[in-house]
This record gives sequence, C-alpha cells and structure tokens, in this order.
Amino acid sequence: MSHNLLKGKTGIIFGALDEKSLAWNIAEKCYEEGAQFTLSNTPVALRFGQLEKLSEKCNATIIPADATKVDELQTVFSKSIDLMGGKIDFVLHSIGMSHNVRKKLSYSDLNYDYFVKTLDISAISFHRMLQTAYKLDAIKEWGSVVGLSYIAAQRTLTGYNDMADAKALLESIARSFGYIYGRDKKVRINTISQSPTPTTAGSGVKGMEGLMDFTNRMSPLGNASASECADYCVTLFSDLTKKVTMQNLYHDGGFSNMGMSLNAMQMYNKAMDCDCD
Amino acid sequence: MSHNLLKGKTGIIFGALDEKSLAWNIAEKCYEEGAQFTLSNTPVALRFGQLEKLSEKCNATIIPADATKVDELQTVFSKSIDLMGGKIDFVLHSIGMSHNVRKKLSYSDLNYDYFVKTLDISAISFHRMLQTAYKLDAIKEWGSVVGLSYIAAQRTLTGYNDMADAKALLESIARSFGYIYGRDKKVRINTISQSPTPTTAGSGVKGMEGLMDFTNRMSPLGNASASECADYCVTLFSDLTKKVTMQNLYHDGGFSNMGMSLNAMQMYNKAMDCDCD
Amino acid sequence: MSHNLLKGKTGIIFGALDEKSLAWNIAEKCYEEGAQFTLSNTPVALRFGQLEKLSEKCNATIIPADATKVDELQTVFSKSIDLMGGKIDFVLHSIGMSHNVRKKLSYSDLNYDYFVKTLDISAISFHRMLQTAYKLDAIKEWGSVVGLSYIAAQRTLTGYNDMADAKALLESIARSFGYIYGRDKKVRINTISQSPTPTTAGSGVKGMEGLMDFTNRMSPLGNASASECADYCVTLFSDLTKKVTMQNLYHDGGFSNMGMSLNAMQMYNKAMDCDCD
Amino acid sequence: MSHNLLKGKTGIIFGALDEKSLAWNIAEKCYEEGAQFTLSNTPVALRFGQLEKLSEKCNATIIPADATKVDELQTVFSKSIDLMGGKIDFVLHSIGMSHNVRKKLSYSDLNYDYFVKTLDISAISFHRMLQTAYKLDAIKEWGSVVGLSYIAAQRTLTGYNDMADAKALLESIARSFGYIYGRDKKVRINTISQSPTPTTAGSGVKGMEGLMDFTNRMSPLGNASASECADYCVTLFSDLTKKVTMQNLYHDGGFSNMGMSLNAMQMYNKAMDCDCD
Repeated sequence: MSHNLLKGKTGIIFGALDEKSLAWNIAEKCYEEGAQFTLSNTPVALRFGQLEKLSEKCNATIIPADATKVDELQTVFSKSIDLMGGKIDFVLHSIGMSHNVRKKLSYSDLNYDYFVKTLDISAISFHRMLQTAYKLDAIKEWGSVVGLSYIAAQRTLTGYNDMADAKALLESIARSFGYIYGRDKKVRINTISQSPTPTTAGSGVKGMEGLMDFTNRMSPLGNASASECADYCVTLFSDLTKKVTMQNLYHDGGFSNMGMSLNAMQMYNKAMDCDCD
Repeated sequence: MSHNLLKGKTGIIFGALDEKSLAWNIAEKCYEEGAQFTLSNTPVALRFGQLEKLSEKCNATIIPADATKVDELQTVFSKSIDLMGGKIDFVLHSIGMSHNVRKKLSYSDLNYDYFVKTLDISAISFHRMLQTAYKLDAIKEWGSVVGLSYIAAQRTLTGYNDMADAKALLESIARSFGYIYGRDKKVRINTISQSPTPTTAGSGVKGMEGLMDFTNRMSPLGNASASECADYCVTLFSDLTKKVTMQNLYHDGGFSNMGMSLNAMQMYNKAMDCDCD
Repeated sequence: MSHNLLKGKTGIIFGALDEKSLAWNIAEKCYEEGAQFTLSNTPVALRFGQLEKLSEKCNATIIPADATKVDELQTVFSKSIDLMGGKIDFVLHSIGMSHNVRKKLSYSDLNYDYFVKTLDISAISFHRMLQTAYKLDAIKEWGSVVGLSYIAAQRTLTGYNDMADAKALLESIARSFGYIYGRDKKVRINTISQSPTPTTAGSGVKGMEGLMDFTNRMSPLGNASASECADYCVTLFSDLTKKVTMQNLYHDGGFSNMGMSLNAMQMYNKAMDCDCD
Repeated sequence: MSHNLLKGKTGIIFGALDEKSLAWNIAEKCYEEGAQFTLSNTPVALRFGQLEKLSEKCNATIIPADATKVDELQTVFSKSIDLMGGKIDFVLHSIGMSHNVRKKLSYSDLNYDYFVKTLDISAISFHRMLQTAYKLDAIKEWGSVVGLSYIAAQRTLTGYNDMADAKALLESIARSFGYIYGRDKKVRINTISQSPTPTTAGSGVKGMEGLMDFTNRMSPLGNASASECADYCVTLFSDLTKKVTMQNLYHDGGFSNMGMSLNAMQMYNKAMDCDCD
C-alpha cells in the first residue's frame, strides 16, 4: 500500500544487482511511493545482474558507472538531472566489495592493494559521489542521501575482514560530509546499519548462516529483511525526517543494543550441554 | 499534506500541555495522518494547560492520570481500548519534571526526595506505562512506543541537572523493556533525542537561550523544531519502521555528531576578540 | 610486585564482602601499592561477610554505613579524614543490589518499591557519596573516584533485570557529577565496566555460567578477573590518569567491541548441528 | 618520580619529531619508567626534527622507516628484536599527515590521491605495523600496542578535514586487529583519543587556538597535555591493563562527555552580548 511519500521526488539509486539486493528492494519501494529515479551500477554488475528487469519495472533509466571514477559519477548526476528535469532529491549508496574477502585472505594477511581497493570501492566512492553532487549542485535543498552500512563498523565480527574498516570509513564520511552538505545546502546524509541480509554480495562472507541465526535469536524482533530496509529507507528520503543527519541508524530488530537474549542463550547452552562432537 | 501514514491506527499520547509542547505537535500530526487517539496528562496539567483545545481539534478523549500511579495508568489503557474498539497501536511518553531544577538546587546540592521524584515522574513512569500495557496486553503486534529524550543523557550540560540522569534512565528502560516487549509481543520501543526546544516545560532550564543559539550554530541543519519532531515521530509510529527498536534516535539537525562547526567557532572567537566586558 | 603507585595516598573502599568481591581485590591491591584506606559496608554485610579479615590484612579501619543514608556517609568521610590525617585521594563505589532480582520478579513484573530501592542502593548512593564528599571538601585536588559498572548499562542481557537500569543511572551520575567535581575541585570520576565476574553478589543473576562462557569465548583476551580489575583500578587511582574523567572504561578482554568471535561462533554452530535435545 | 612500571620492557616508538610531539613525551616517560626502546620515523622527519636528541637522552637507537612500506617496517621490527635481545613488549603509533590539509583543500574539494595518501600514512600504516609484527611474531604475549587518535573520529570538527576519516579508520583497525592479535597472541591494541595538543604536526589545522580555548573551557579538568598523555600511555603499556583491548580511550579532561559547560557557555554568551564587531 503506497502512501505517496516520495511523490514528485527524483533520485539516483546506486548498487542494485538482483532481487535480493537491498538497493533493488529500495528501488521498488521508492517507485511504489511515487519517486522517479535512475539506476547505476558498474558495467560488470550490469552484465551479471538483472538490472534491466528492475529498470523496466520502475521505468528507470540505467546509467552505467564505476563509482570510483569522478568523471563517470559526473555523467550519472548530469544525465539524471537532464532525464528528470532538474536537481534531484535523494541518492542511495549501496556499494561494497573486498578482494581480500573474495580471495579468502585473512585480516592478518591482507593484500594492501586490495585493502586500498576495498576502501576505494566501498567508502571513498561515497565521498566521490557526494563531492560530485556538491560541485554540480545536483541535490535540492532538504535532499537526502543514504549509505548502507553494517554493525561491523563498531564491533568486530569474525570473517567480515577489511569490510569492517570500510564501513567505519563510510560512516565517518557520512558524518564529515553531512556537516558540509548540511551547512551549505541543507542536504542530509545518513547511513543505515542493516541486519545481516542474505544478498548475493553478502554471501561471500563465510559462516553467514550461523551468524544470521545468532543475530536473529539475539534480536527481539528478529533480523530485518531487505524489504523492511526499503521501508525504512523511504522514511529517510521523505520529508518527515528533514532534521535527521550525520547519523548511523540501526535497522536490525534491536540487535545493536542486545548483550544476550534468552533465545540465543538457550541455543548456546545447548551446545554446552551437548556431547555429540 | 497528509500521507495517511497512520490511517486506522489508534494510540495514547501522554504529556501534551499547550501549543509549544512536543506532545501537542505530535498529536496534531498523528491526527493529520489519520490516527485516532486519547490524550492523557495529570489533573494539574489539565488545569493549567489547554488540552481541551487539542481534544476538540483532534477529536480525542482526555483521560486524566498521574503516570506515577499504576492504577491510573490501567484506567488510561482500559478506557482507551474501550473507546477505540480494541488494542492500540502506539504510545507517546512525553513526561518530565524536576523539583531540583524548579527550586534551583544545584547538582551538588540535590534534595534526594526530589531526585527520586524526578526519576519517578520522568523515567520510571515509562516503565509503569510499559508494564501496565504489557500486562493488559494492550498494544497490538508491531505496535510502537516512543519516549522523548535529550542528549543530556549522554553528555553533561550545565544547568540540566538531575534531568540528565532521568533521561539516561529513560533510555535504559526503553532498551530493557524493548527487549522484553519485542521478544514477547513484537512491540518496538524507542526514544527520540530531540534538539532543545522552546517548550513551556523546558523554559525552567536556565540559560536556554544561549544554549539554543549554540546548538543551532553547531548543527548543520539547525535545531529541530517541535513540528519537525512530530513528523519524525509519525515515521516511528508508522509501519515503515517495524524493525527499529531499542534505539535512541537523534533528531537534532546533526548536533550529536558535531565537535565544532564553523558558525559556532566564529561566534566563539568573537568573544575571544571582544574587549567590551 | 608493587610499584608504589599509591604511596602516600589515602582513600575509602565501599562494598567489599569476601575474597571474591571486586572491592576486596581492589583493597588488597591498593594496600600492596602503598595506599592507606578505610573500609565501609552495611552492618548486614559486615555480619555475613569477612571484612574483618581484610581489615587486618590491610591495616584498614572498618566504618559501617548504609550508603543510602547521608548522615552515615558523612560519618565515613569525617572519620576517614580523622584517621588518615587529612583529605583523602580516592574512593571506590562497589555497591549494587536488586530485590527484584533476588525475588525472581521479571522485568515485566517489577515491584516498584523494589525498583526504586535498586536505584537507591546501586546508583543514587553514588551521588550521595559524591555530594557528601563535595560538601565536606573531603577529597584532595586531583583525587579519583571509581564506580563499578557493567555493560548491561548499554546492552540488554536477559536476567540482568533492573540492575541494567541502575548501572545506566550510575554511569550517568558519574558523568554529571564528574563535570561538577572536576570543574570545582579537580576531582575525577569514572566507572569501570567489568567483565561478568563470579562474585557472591553476582551469583544471583540466573544463567551466569552460560553467559560467562559466552563472554569468555567472545573476548579475544577472555573475561577479566577480579584481580585484573584491581590492577586496572589502581591505574585510575594513581597520578598517571589525571585527565581521565567522566568516562565509562571497559575492562572486559575486548568483549564490548566484539560482534562475533570465531570461538563463540564455533560453539554456537555446535548447537545448531546438535541433535541431542 | 619513576615507578619502574615498564622495567624490563622493550618497545618501538613511531612518530616522535620534536619536544612538542606526543611520541616524544611518551618516549621520555617510558624511559623514566624503565623501558628500553627503539625510535622510528621517516627520513624526512629525521632531517627536520630533533630525534637525535631524544635518541641520546633515552639511549635509544633510531631506525628510519617509511611506515607505508612493509619491508621497511620489517626492518624496524627485526632490528629492534636484535638490538633488545628478543620479542618486544610495546609499540606506539603516532603517525598522521594529510596533504589535503596542508594544501588547504576543503573537505568538499578533496584531491583523491591525497585522500588515499592520508589514509595510507595515518591509518593503513597501523595495519601494516600490526601485520608485520604479527607475521614476525615480534610481540610478546600480553604485549600492548597504542595508536594516537582524536575525537574527530566520532564528531566532525571544522577544518579537521580528511584526518577525521583517517582517525575513524585507525580506530577501526585497532578493533579489527585487536580481535585477531588478542585471540592468537594475547596482544592488546587500543587507541588514545587525546585532547587537541599544540604539536608541530597539529599546527597545520586552522583555527587551533580558538578550538583549544573552547575545549579547555568545556573540559572540567581542562585540556590534557602531551606530558599527561605520556603518563596515561605508560599505564597502557604496563601490566596493570592486561585485559583492556579494542578500546578507544578518551584522555581529554572530560571533553568527550560534555554537552555544554558553564565556562564555555559564559564565553559564548559574551559574544552574543558583544557589540564590538
């Protein structure tokens, strides 16, 4: 059921790949809520993903771009402005990748070229996007930018590797640029720290299943789904959250403020009592 | 412009006094967004405030209650359920008072009876409200409870006195009960940490003007108003934030994550250069 | 091996009961490091505990007091000053108790008289202690006050009940009074957030064993012991930490910043694979 | 007055330049407390600084190295082990530099090569150091590593620019590697978040004077000096803090937990009342 919360609003959504993607779900929801937007991802992602399908469904033009390249980002913003007839209202950054994770290099055996690349793709790209938009004055007053993050930015999770550092950097950039962009253009910038979600991208992290069971039992409301994340993101793009900025917002069923739940403890105790190994 | 975000939802709003009140603004906005609700405040507040006016405007029954008394809270919940035909969807807690502040007792000269009263009225009342609702099973699954807080819970502000401790306790209760209520009934509980707002209640804190000028210059988007707080609160009562719980959410134009802004620094430097005293 | 870190320093240690107590361990360590101090606890605790033994070992006078009573605290400070020949250097607050926990009332079925009592004994007593010392001007410039806390103040743990709220209040009082006492008398106030420790007092919390196994596996350095807590506390009483104030300091082997460790995950996964129930 | 807290301990101190440096003060204090260590900095820093003087004073060998190069770090660790006869106990990382700050490029006009360089020098160097030490197994069990940070990692300060992001990354690396190194070798890793300090390096940040006056008036104990930072660092290298890891520890006279002090407010109000501009 649509509330037309984004009626008349225009935006750019970076990082949708397939139906499981957070960005995909957010795009669908933004469309339902009346927004018009363009979609962007890398040429490789366009080839392997199903962005065409989303493009048709949401009547959204795809503009390929490598978010680590300023000139390509300039193209995305310029074309989007042209296509939608003026400055835009919102931007979603849902981009992350680590070659160290992919190549199964542990955090005490990082390849530093990969590490810089992780930071470049997953975090500095956010700054590039913001700086490009700022210089082009591409976002309307009281516009809203959201980046997707994860609690690994605050707390170490085995296997999350250098993506944890990338998320910490991403959240810092949201604060740093949130100050500048808010002060100068009244644009707000926040990150959503989402529950672990079974996306295609996230499936590279080893031990995801056990972790997701744990976080689900720890969280009083259970893990948040991609579709629920999309709902939440819509509130941040809407006019109802105009004074929320520079925040990292947990969307995780309560996980972030749990120390130990009854459900998780019972499961854990089962292992302690268990003789089957 | 209404989005019917709360269409069909019912609730209880505690703590509206007059047009400046956060709770008053929230009530108006909830009404606009299609909600039906009752209003509650103490008999004293009903006498000195203008709740009748709000009651008429929003077509909302007033149920007087002292939120430090369980039986009176039971009445509020029972009557509300009767009036609105079933379990409710949302509750707002906007209650706070310190006799130490009123009597200008400094934090190093607290009266302990007053201190306990501050905690009782401003924080334990939140637990009473939640426990009463929980025992009566008064709130629907995926219902939402919001308490209003202030950054003094995290950072000491001269003059805020024992209200700082009350807000810290309030936020702790939101977490503690958020776990229980989420786990057992899928009800979410959050606090909004609002910019300093020129309410009638807040005017007791000395030096509010200077502080509000400072926070306004520190915040890239400026202080958040009562009306904007109401917008934000609506998102938390809506179905778009179902998996947000146990959080303290800053609604403050970015203040909470600022160390020093250009605007505030310039003002401060002016004092350093100033010879007029 | 002593470093004479507290040579010439005098203090008061509240809350030692028996050899397992954090306060007991801290007292022993302070004595080793050259400090002279008095010991205080309630008459009941003196009867059931073994404080006499500690008193002899550390050559420390016992001054009975109920920390919820200002006049008794005044006696403790006055007598301590008399006994040790002048203003003191440090104070330890290690006091906590919940009748709700003892009577196994759950957090959604709290007795409110007990709740207020929990706050009064476990947190407001800290304010009483500080206000008493402040009014008597009992602590030297650059003196140091430490309260013992637990991560339940930030994150909900099943079974910790209203003690979580008490710890949140305790930490807030440390900040609020830390500002006043620092500004006016250069006295610093901090809390140590200690690993779960197998004390006699802590044994009331149900499921402690499973929880301690979990936190031990989550923490890269394992749970911190009472003896290690004492070491840490000594650094905070020493002159080496003069500018640390209003902080809550985690002493927990890293637990507070862990999301999931390999060791805990393996244990948890064992339960998932386990068919023995 | 020495307490021989570091007697028999050996270490490496990276980043001392001249007498104002935090690392310089830390080196002197470590020496006083009985430690033996080597000193390292870049060839450029060795030319412009006065490290020779410190080397003589502390009887410490200088090993030049660019901390962005793994092979040079390997040399520092290997030589240090050779010189001091075995694995070491502690490491200090006090390295930071931003060409964007130096060239006065604003945060919305960053040069991305410089940005990556800022991160590389100021944060990734910490990972390189840790990974090198880890692979060489250069640090003893219960050894201690400290990096120096600043509150800009959490809260935006005008003019601090991309160094804020670098510090956020540094603190994340401390957590991420703190988990691994703690789990595998019982080595602890923390950062100290120090008051703004008038170092030669820090003087590049514009408006430092006004900011330091502000933070000094905000902090109940005033800004922490370089010498006090050295005292605090000694406690973290000592055996008294064995279970403290993955923490960011504020050493700032209380600034981090202040919202507004009386002193700073009075100064600010002076500007509001002032007609001299």
